[in-house]
Amino acid sequence: MASAQHLRDAIRDIPDFPKPGVVFKDITPILSDPSLFKESLELLCQTAQGQKIDKVVGIDARGFIFAAAVADRLNAGFVPVRKQGKLPWQTRQLAYTLEYGESVVEIHEDAVHPGEKVLLVDDLLATGGTAAAAVQLLDGLGADLVAISFLIELGFLNGREKLGDHRIESLIRYD
Amino acid sequence: MASAQHLRDAIRDIPDFPKPGVVFKDITPILSDPSLFKESLELLCQTAQGQKIDKVVGIDARGFIFAAAVADRLNAGFVPVRKQGKLPWQTRQLAYTLEYGESVVEIHEDAVHPGEKVLLVDDLLATGGTAAAAVQLLDGLGADLVAISFLIELGFLNGREKLGDHRIESLIRYD
Repeated sequence: MASAQHLRDAIRDIPDFPKPGVVFKDITPILSDPSLFKESLELLCQTAQGQKIDKVVGIDARGFIFAAAVADRLNAGFVPVRKQGKLPWQTRQLAYTLEYGESVVEIHEDAVHPGEKVLLVDDLLATGGTAAAAVQLLDGLGADLVAISFLIELGFLNGREKLGDHRIESLIRYD
Repeated sequence: MASAQHLRDAIRDIPDFPKPGVVFKDITPILSDPSLFKESLELLCQTAQGQKIDKVVGIDARGFIFAAAVADRLNAGFVPVRKQGKLPWQTRQLAYTLEYGESVVEIHEDAVHPGEKVLLVDDLLATGGTAAAAVQLLDGLGADLVAISFLIELGFLNGREKLGDHRIESLIRYD
Protein backbone atom coordinates (compact mmCIF):
# COMPACT_ATOMS: atom_id res chain seq x y z
CA MET A 1 0.00 0.00 0.00
CA ALA A 2 1.85 3.05 -1.32
CA SER A 3 0.33 5.46 1.20
CA ALA A 4 1.98 3.51 4.00
CA GLN A 5 5.48 4.45 2.81
CA HIS A 6 6.27 6.88 5.60
CA LEU A 7 4.99 4.41 8.14
CA ARG A 8 7.54 2.00 6.72
CA ASP A 9 10.22 4.69 6.85
CA ALA A 10 9.57 5.27 10.56
CA ILE A 11 9.99 1.65 11.60
CA ARG A 12 13.24 1.04 13.45
CA ASP A 13 15.19 -2.14 12.75
CA ILE A 14 16.60 -3.71 15.93
CA PRO A 15 19.17 -6.40 15.13
CA ASP A 16 19.36 -9.50 17.32
CA PHE A 17 16.15 -8.83 19.27
CA PRO A 18 14.64 -10.74 20.96
CA LYS A 19 17.37 -13.24 20.04
CA PRO A 20 20.46 -13.43 17.81
CA GLY A 21 19.73 -13.45 14.08
CA VAL A 22 16.30 -11.85 14.31
CA VAL A 23 15.77 -8.26 13.10
CA PHE A 24 12.93 -6.86 15.15
CA LYS A 25 10.64 -4.25 13.61
CA ASP A 26 10.23 -1.56 16.28
CA ILE A 27 6.95 0.27 15.74
CA THR A 28 7.21 2.63 18.72
CA PRO A 29 8.34 5.54 16.47
CA ILE A 30 4.98 5.24 14.70
CA LEU A 31 3.08 5.18 17.98
CA SER A 32 4.84 8.18 19.49
CA ASP A 33 4.24 10.43 16.47
CA PRO A 34 0.61 11.60 16.44
CA SER A 35 0.38 11.97 12.67
CA LEU A 36 1.94 8.57 11.94
CA PHE A 37 -0.17 6.87 14.60
CA LYS A 38 -3.31 8.42 13.15
CA GLU A 39 -2.31 7.46 9.62
CA SER A 40 -1.82 3.84 10.67
CA LEU A 41 -5.25 3.83 12.34
CA GLU A 42 -6.88 5.41 9.30
CA LEU A 43 -5.42 2.73 7.02
CA LEU A 44 -6.36 -0.09 9.39
CA CYS A 45 -9.94 1.23 9.48
CA GLN A 46 -10.03 1.17 5.68
CA THR A 47 -9.51 -2.60 5.75
CA ALA A 48 -13.13 -2.86 6.96
CA GLN A 49 -14.07 -1.53 3.50
CA GLY A 50 -16.96 0.48 4.84
CA GLN A 51 -18.74 -2.51 6.39
CA LYS A 52 -20.42 -2.06 9.76
CA ILE A 53 -18.15 -3.78 12.28
CA ASP A 54 -19.62 -5.00 15.58
CA LYS A 55 -16.40 -5.99 17.34
CA VAL A 56 -12.73 -5.27 16.81
CA VAL A 57 -10.57 -8.01 18.30
CA GLY A 58 -7.02 -7.28 19.48
CA ILE A 59 -4.31 -9.70 20.53
CA ASP A 60 -2.33 -9.27 23.77
CA ALA A 61 -0.38 -6.98 24.10
CA ARG A 62 0.81 -4.74 21.23
CA GLY A 63 -2.28 -5.64 19.24
CA PHE A 64 -4.40 -3.90 21.88
CA ILE A 65 -2.87 -0.56 20.93
CA PHE A 66 -4.14 -0.54 17.37
CA ALA A 67 -7.28 -2.61 17.85
CA ALA A 68 -8.67 -0.44 20.67
CA ALA A 69 -8.26 2.81 18.75
CA VAL A 70 -9.68 1.21 15.59
CA ALA A 71 -12.70 0.01 17.60
CA ASP A 72 -13.26 3.55 18.84
CA ARG A 73 -13.03 4.94 15.31
CA LEU A 74 -15.37 2.29 13.86
CA ASN A 75 -17.95 2.66 16.66
CA ALA A 76 -17.40 -0.99 17.49
CA GLY A 77 -16.81 -2.87 20.72
CA PHE A 78 -13.32 -4.01 21.64
CA VAL A 79 -12.55 -7.64 22.48
CA PRO A 80 -9.21 -8.85 23.87
CA VAL A 81 -7.63 -12.20 23.03
CA ARG A 82 -5.18 -12.90 25.83
CA LYS A 83 -2.57 -15.32 27.01
CA GLN A 84 -3.73 -18.03 29.38
CA GLY A 85 -4.88 -17.00 32.84
CA LYS A 86 -5.38 -13.29 32.14
CA LEU A 87 -9.11 -13.18 31.34
CA PRO A 88 -11.18 -13.38 34.51
CA TRP A 89 -14.49 -14.81 33.28
CA GLN A 90 -15.46 -18.00 31.40
CA THR A 91 -13.21 -18.52 28.41
CA ARG A 92 -12.60 -20.66 25.40
CA GLN A 93 -8.98 -21.70 25.07
CA LEU A 94 -6.79 -22.78 22.21
CA ALA A 95 -3.29 -24.22 22.40
CA TYR A 96 -0.90 -23.71 19.50
CA THR A 97 2.66 -24.64 18.73
CA LEU A 98 5.53 -22.19 18.94
CA GLU A 99 9.06 -22.68 17.69
CA TYR A 100 9.88 -24.14 21.09
CA GLY A 101 6.96 -25.51 23.04
CA GLU A 102 3.35 -24.44 23.15
CA SER A 103 1.26 -21.43 24.05
CA VAL A 104 -2.41 -20.95 24.93
CA VAL A 105 -4.68 -18.03 24.09
CA GLU A 106 -8.16 -17.34 25.41
CA ILE A 107 -11.26 -15.34 24.63
CA HIS A 108 -14.27 -14.70 26.83
CA GLU A 109 -17.21 -16.93 25.91
CA ASP A 110 -19.54 -13.95 25.62
CA ALA A 111 -17.09 -11.72 23.76
CA VAL A 112 -18.58 -12.23 20.30
CA HIS A 113 -22.07 -13.40 19.44
CA PRO A 114 -22.87 -15.63 16.45
CA GLY A 115 -23.08 -13.64 13.23
CA GLU A 116 -21.44 -10.50 14.58
CA LYS A 117 -19.13 -8.81 12.10
CA VAL A 118 -15.59 -8.86 13.42
CA LEU A 119 -12.34 -7.20 12.39
CA LEU A 120 -9.21 -8.85 13.83
CA VAL A 121 -6.37 -6.33 14.19
CA ASP A 122 -2.78 -7.03 15.17
CA ASP A 123 0.52 -5.26 14.77
CA LEU A 124 2.49 -8.09 13.19
CA LEU A 125 1.92 -11.17 11.06
CA ALA A 126 5.02 -13.33 11.50
CA THR A 127 4.65 -17.13 11.57
CA GLY A 128 0.92 -16.67 12.13
CA GLY A 129 0.51 -19.05 15.04
CA THR A 130 -1.15 -16.62 17.41
CA ALA A 131 -3.35 -15.08 14.73
CA ALA A 132 -4.46 -18.54 13.55
CA ALA A 133 -5.39 -19.45 17.12
CA ALA A 134 -7.39 -16.22 17.46
CA VAL A 135 -9.17 -16.97 14.18
CA GLN A 136 -10.10 -20.45 15.38
CA LEU A 137 -11.48 -19.02 18.62
CA LEU A 138 -13.56 -16.51 16.65
CA ASP A 139 -14.78 -19.17 14.23
CA GLY A 140 -15.78 -21.27 17.24
CA LEU A 141 -17.92 -18.42 18.59
CA GLY A 142 -19.66 -18.07 15.22
CA ALA A 143 -18.12 -14.71 14.33
CA ASP A 144 -18.42 -13.33 10.81
CA LEU A 145 -14.75 -12.45 10.36
CA VAL A 146 -14.75 -9.62 7.82
CA ALA A 147 -10.96 -9.23 7.62
CA ILE A 148 -7.70 -9.72 9.46
CA SER A 149 -5.64 -6.54 9.42
CA PHE A 150 -1.97 -6.23 10.25
CA LEU A 151 0.27 -3.22 10.43
CA ILE A 152 3.26 -5.33 9.33
CA GLU A 153 3.50 -8.65 7.50
CA LEU A 154 6.74 -10.60 7.36
CA GLY A 155 5.88 -12.23 4.05
CA PHE A 156 8.93 -14.52 4.06
CA LEU A 157 7.54 -16.38 7.07
CA ASN A 158 4.38 -17.37 5.15
CA GLY A 159 2.11 -16.73 8.13
CA ARG A 160 -0.92 -16.06 5.94
CA GLU A 161 -0.97 -19.70 4.90
CA LYS A 162 -2.16 -20.53 8.42
CA LEU A 163 -5.15 -18.18 8.23
CA GLY A 164 -7.43 -20.12 5.91
CA ASP A 165 -9.43 -18.27 3.29
CA HIS A 166 -10.13 -15.19 5.37
CA ARG A 167 -9.33 -11.83 3.81
CA ILE A 168 -5.94 -10.63 5.06
CA GLU A 169 -4.71 -7.05 4.72
CA SER A 170 -1.32 -5.72 5.75
CA LEU A 171 -0.19 -2.12 5.53
CA ILE A 172 3.54 -2.84 5.32
CA ARG A 173 4.98 -6.01 3.90
CA TYR A 174 8.57 -7.30 4.06
CA ASP A 175 9.43 -10.02 1.56
CA MET B 1 -18.02 11.04 39.08
CA ALA B 2 -21.78 10.70 38.71
CA SER B 3 -21.71 10.37 34.92
CA ALA B 4 -19.68 7.20 35.26
CA GLN B 5 -22.54 5.37 36.98
CA HIS B 6 -23.45 3.09 34.11
CA LEU B 7 -19.80 2.27 33.58
CA ARG B 8 -19.80 1.13 37.20
CA ASP B 9 -23.01 -0.83 36.64
CA ALA B 10 -21.41 -2.72 33.72
CA ILE B 11 -18.36 -3.92 35.66
CA ARG B 12 -18.53 -7.61 36.45
CA ASP B 13 -17.34 -8.81 39.86
CA ILE B 14 -15.32 -12.03 39.62
CA PRO B 15 -14.84 -13.62 43.06
CA ASP B 16 -11.55 -15.35 43.84
CA PHE B 17 -9.69 -14.15 40.74
CA PRO B 18 -6.76 -14.23 40.26
CA LYS B 19 -6.55 -15.83 43.71
CA PRO B 20 -8.85 -16.73 46.60
CA GLY B 21 -10.23 -13.77 48.51
CA VAL B 22 -9.78 -11.22 45.74
CA VAL B 23 -12.82 -9.82 43.89
CA PHE B 24 -11.61 -8.92 40.42
CA LYS B 25 -13.27 -6.03 38.58
CA ASP B 26 -13.85 -7.30 35.04
CA ILE B 27 -14.01 -4.37 32.64
CA THR B 28 -14.54 -6.37 29.45
CA PRO B 29 -18.31 -5.60 29.43
CA ILE B 30 -17.37 -1.91 29.11
CA LEU B 31 -14.93 -2.61 26.29
CA SER B 32 -17.29 -4.77 24.27
CA ASP B 33 -20.14 -2.23 24.34
CA PRO B 34 -19.39 0.61 21.90
CA SER B 35 -21.33 3.25 23.81
CA LEU B 36 -19.81 2.36 27.18
CA PHE B 37 -16.31 2.13 25.70
CA LYS B 38 -16.72 5.55 24.10
CA GLU B 39 -18.10 7.03 27.30
CA SER B 40 -15.09 5.77 29.26
CA LEU B 41 -12.74 7.28 26.67
CA GLU B 42 -14.60 10.59 26.70
CA LEU B 43 -14.33 10.81 30.49
CA LEU B 44 -10.64 9.83 30.47
CA CYS B 45 -9.97 12.55 27.90
CA GLN B 46 -11.66 15.08 30.17
CA THR B 47 -9.01 14.45 32.81
CA ALA B 48 -6.60 16.38 30.57
CA GLN B 49 -8.80 19.41 31.35
CA GLY B 50 -8.36 20.85 27.88
CA GLN B 51 -4.56 21.02 28.06
CA LYS B 52 -2.59 20.12 24.95
CA ILE B 53 -1.13 16.67 25.63
CA ASP B 54 2.00 15.56 23.74
CA LYS B 55 2.11 11.93 24.85
CA VAL B 56 -0.35 9.53 26.41
CA VAL B 57 1.43 6.78 28.31
CA GLY B 58 -0.18 3.36 28.78
CA ILE B 59 0.90 0.50 31.00
CA ASP B 60 1.20 -3.09 29.70
CA ALA B 61 -1.26 -4.65 28.90
CA ARG B 62 -4.85 -3.55 29.73
CA GLY B 63 -3.69 0.03 30.08
CA PHE B 64 -2.81 0.00 26.38
CA ILE B 65 -6.49 -0.35 25.49
CA PHE B 66 -7.58 2.93 27.03
CA ALA B 67 -4.37 4.88 26.59
CA ALA B 68 -4.05 4.23 22.85
CA ALA B 69 -7.59 5.34 22.08
CA VAL B 70 -7.21 8.37 24.36
CA ALA B 71 -3.99 9.30 22.52
CA ASP B 72 -5.85 9.11 19.21
CA ARG B 73 -8.65 11.32 20.53
CA LEU B 74 -6.26 13.89 22.03
CA ASN B 75 -4.05 14.03 18.91
CA ALA B 76 -1.14 12.87 21.04
CA GLY B 77 1.52 10.21 20.59
CA PHE B 78 1.22 6.92 22.43
CA VAL B 79 4.01 5.58 24.64
CA PRO B 80 4.06 2.09 26.16
CA VAL B 81 5.47 1.24 29.58
CA ARG B 82 6.21 -2.47 29.48
CA LYS B 83 7.39 -5.35 31.57
CA GLN B 84 11.08 -6.13 31.38
CA GLY B 85 12.43 -7.48 28.09
CA LYS B 86 9.53 -6.44 25.87
CA LEU B 87 10.78 -3.09 24.53
CA PRO B 88 13.35 -3.59 21.79
CA TRP B 89 15.38 -0.37 21.92
CA GLN B 90 17.36 1.41 24.67
CA THR B 91 15.33 1.62 27.85
CA ARG B 92 15.27 3.01 31.34
CA GLN B 93 14.24 0.42 33.89
CA LEU B 94 12.74 0.54 37.32
CA ALA B 95 12.32 -2.29 39.79
CA TYR B 96 9.50 -2.19 42.31
CA THR B 97 8.21 -4.42 45.05
CA LEU B 98 5.14 -6.60 44.67
CA GLU B 99 3.30 -8.49 47.38
CA TYR B 100 5.62 -11.41 46.67
CA GLY B 101 8.92 -10.55 45.04
CA GLU B 102 9.80 -7.81 42.58
CA SER B 103 8.89 -6.65 39.09
CA VAL B 104 10.63 -4.42 36.56
CA VAL B 105 9.05 -1.99 34.11
CA GLU B 106 10.73 -0.18 31.25
CA ILE B 107 10.26 2.80 28.96
CA HIS B 108 12.18 3.68 25.81
CA GLU B 109 14.79 6.38 26.45
CA ASP B 110 13.45 8.49 23.57
CA ALA B 111 9.77 7.96 24.40
CA VAL B 112 9.22 11.31 26.10
CA HIS B 113 11.30 14.46 25.74
CA PRO B 114 11.95 16.88 28.62
CA GLY B 115 9.06 19.25 29.15
CA GLU B 116 6.54 17.30 27.09
CA LYS B 117 3.05 17.24 28.53
CA VAL B 118 2.10 13.71 29.44
CA LEU B 119 -1.12 12.00 30.50
CA LEU B 120 -0.64 8.61 32.16
CA VAL B 121 -3.67 6.36 31.64
CA ASP B 122 -4.31 2.97 33.18
CA ASP B 123 -7.34 0.83 33.82
CA LEU B 124 -6.84 0.21 37.52
CA LEU B 125 -5.22 1.85 40.52
CA ALA B 126 -4.80 -0.89 43.12
CA THR B 127 -1.74 -0.87 45.38
CA GLY B 128 -0.12 1.61 43.00
CA GLY B 129 3.24 -0.10 42.61
CA THR B 130 3.26 -0.25 38.83
CA ALA B 131 1.84 3.24 38.41
CA ALA B 132 4.41 4.65 40.84
CA ALA B 133 7.19 2.99 38.86
CA ALA B 134 5.82 4.47 35.63
CA VAL B 135 5.66 7.90 37.25
CA GLN B 136 9.28 7.63 38.36
CA LEU B 137 10.35 6.65 34.85
CA LEU B 138 8.47 9.65 33.42
CA ASP B 139 9.92 11.99 36.02
CA GLY B 140 13.37 10.69 35.11
CA LEU B 141 12.81 11.59 31.46
CA GLY B 142 11.77 15.11 32.45
CA ALA B 143 8.10 14.70 31.50
CA ASP B 144 5.55 17.29 32.57
CA LEU B 145 3.01 14.87 34.01
CA VAL B 146 -0.32 16.67 33.69
CA ALA B 147 -2.44 13.95 35.32
CA ILE B 148 -2.69 10.25 36.06
CA SER B 149 -6.06 8.89 34.97
CA PHE B 150 -7.58 5.58 35.99
CA LEU B 151 -10.81 3.96 34.98
CA ILE B 152 -11.06 2.29 38.41
CA GLU B 153 -9.53 3.11 41.77
CA LEU B 154 -9.59 0.64 44.63
CA GLY B 155 -9.50 3.35 47.26
CA PHE B 156 -9.18 0.92 50.17
CA LEU B 157 -5.70 -0.09 48.94
CA ASN B 158 -4.41 3.49 49.26
CA GLY B 159 -2.49 3.32 46.00
CA ARG B 160 -2.62 7.07 45.46
CA GLU B 161 -0.34 7.58 48.43
CA LYS B 162 2.48 6.16 46.31
CA LEU B 163 1.97 8.66 43.50
CA GLY B 164 3.40 11.79 45.07
CA ASP B 165 1.70 15.12 44.50
CA HIS B 166 0.64 14.45 40.92
CA ARG B 167 -2.99 15.05 40.04
CA ILE B 168 -4.85 11.74 40.11
CA GLU B 169 -8.28 11.22 38.55
CA SER B 170 -10.35 8.05 38.66
CA LEU B 171 -13.71 7.54 36.99
CA ILE B 172 -14.95 4.83 39.31
CA ARG B 173 -13.88 4.47 42.92
CA TYR B 174 -14.47 1.60 45.32
CA ASP B 175 -13.98 2.41 48.99
